[in-house]
Amino acid sequence: MSSPKIKKLVLLGTGLISGSFALALKRARLVDHVVGVGRNAANLNRAIDLRVIDVANHDAAQAVQGADLVFLGTPVGQMGALMAQIAPHLAADCIVTDGGSTKQDVCELYRQYLPQQLATCVPGHPIAGSDLSGASAATYGLYEGRRTVLTPLAETSAGALETVRALWQACGAIVYEMDAQTHDGVFASVSHVPHLVSFAYMNAVLSKDNAEQCLDFAGTGFRDFTRIAGSHPEMWRDITLANHQAILHDLKANVAQMQRLIGLIEAKNADDLTDYINQASQARSAWGKKRANK
Amino acid sequence: MSSPKIKKLVLLGTGLISGSFALALKRARLVDHVVGVGRNAANLNRAIDLRVIDVANHDAAQAVQGADLVFLGTPVGQMGALMAQIAPHLAADCIVTDGGSTKQDVCELYRQYLPQQLATCVPGHPIAGSDLSGASAATYGLYEGRRTVLTPLAETSAGALETVRALWQACGAIVYEMDAQTHDGVFASVSHVPHLVSFAYMNAVLSKDNAEQCLDFAGTGFRDFTRIAGSHPEMWRDITLANHQAILHDLKANVAQMQRLIGLIEAKNADDLTDYINQASQARSAWGKKRANK
Repeated sequence: MSSPKIKKLVLLGTGLISGSFALALKRARLVDHVVGVGRNAANLNRAIDLRVIDVANHDAAQAVQGADLVFLGTPVGQMGALMAQIAPHLAADCIVTDGGSTKQDVCELYRQYLPQQLATCVPGHPIAGSDLSGASAATYGLYEGRRTVLTPLAETSAGALETVRALWQACGAIVYEMDAQTHDGVFASVSHVPHLVSFAYMNAVLSKDNAEQCLDFAGTGFRDFTRIAGSHPEMWRDITLANHQAILHDLKANVAQMQRLIGLIEAKNADDLTDYINQASQARSAWGKKRANK
Repeated sequence: MSSPKIKKLVLLGTGLISGSFALALKRARLVDHVVGVGRNAANLNRAIDLRVIDVANHDAAQAVQGADLVFLGTPVGQMGALMAQIAPHLAADCIVTDGGSTKQDVCELYRQYLPQQLATCVPGHPIAGSDLSGASAATYGLYEGRRTVLTPLAETSAGALETVRALWQACGAIVYEMDAQTHDGVFASVSHVPHLVSFAYMNAVLSKDNAEQCLDFAGTGFRDFTRIAGSHPEMWRDITLANHQAILHDLKANVAQMQRLIGLIEAKNADDLTDYINQASQARSAWGKKRANK
């Protein structure tokens, strides 16, 4: 299809994810005017300075009037209230999409707060992260070669879906479609649980009497393993609670794996321990080769 | 002190750690002749091609004759047998050191197999790793700005200790001294346990019905969190068994942290969950800023 042209894009929440989306669409000349909404005036001013947005507005209801695309870029926990605020002010054909990391709960929010708008609601999840946040972290190339998953509602129109797909493709993203439940299981497994395990590990180190000495000798393995432990607390609280079912299942599977490993070490079972490590190592090396990004 | 000059350096085990040590000493013009010992002929030939070593020898006992420095660069599990082989052939003033990641067990090996040589035995641990291994991974700059911990025996002479210290400093390393038990506790905490948690996590993913689909959507968080899961199975089996006491203590602390986290999620305790994540996130960010390597 031909590239969609957006006259007015409104970012509800002006940060890394929404700001990088706006920058990429501006560069592709697919958007004329970007309004940034947020609660932090300094962050919004910075977004204007960096040309991530054209104007700032503290009032979501006012901002969305006349918009043809609204992007929800806040933590998932804030999306329901924002949807409620904007619902009476949306044009009938205004497309609403989001960048939330969980999708079953966001789909529920669309149903609850925008029941008249479902044909133009396109739940989405751009898979590009950073431990940085805020508008000043937004970059043109964040989505280049990265994946975006769309989890359309049964009511989502083919036209709205295709428009959002085309916009993400214009950002350089590779677009996938799956149902929200599959999405949540996959991302619990390879994104949410690693974050939580990394938080738990950091707290285990901090509980040691000589935590400071330990951290002083931490090297590159620790650095990479814990990079995600530096992530945004409120965002990860929201993701964790939103996707609690899939997360709890996988966290318990991780505890079971660690208990198995403890058993092998206590039994000094060298052969099974080698097999155990080898299975993980082979799979990780194969993954790294496939991605060619180690 | 003045820089020591090594006429003949013997690497028992020719790989990343020992090879990078040899390369750095050659560049510093502190070593004349490097003999590489190993069981893999292709690896030894590659080491000669890359000028990591000058000659290869399959016989450790023969190789160490006339050496003034022997570096044990094998997995810890092979060090005892090698010490037994070389013991009758060492010159009285030949310094023996190693790059083993655990130190209490290596100190025991020195006592058991080289009881006549203890004054010139200097247990050590250069803290520089890679998921790569083998002589072809050796580089001149591996130790530049990195730490090396020496854990001298009560019997180690001041002279031997100072020589090994000076050699590591010539490699660009910052040299620390601590007792072997403290060393093992610190490295269980910030190196060994992260590896084991990463192995357990990979195996938890692999146990899922849709493991392949999950891995297909893994992103940069997964990539960094699991980088160390690609590590060398035999090496990590040896480290794990060698340092089992400190490791088991910390693995159990990790399980307890994960169970606490599971409890917070099951209770949907948003405030405590935020605090829990925040503690980890703050500590990790502070560590990253201190290191300025995020």
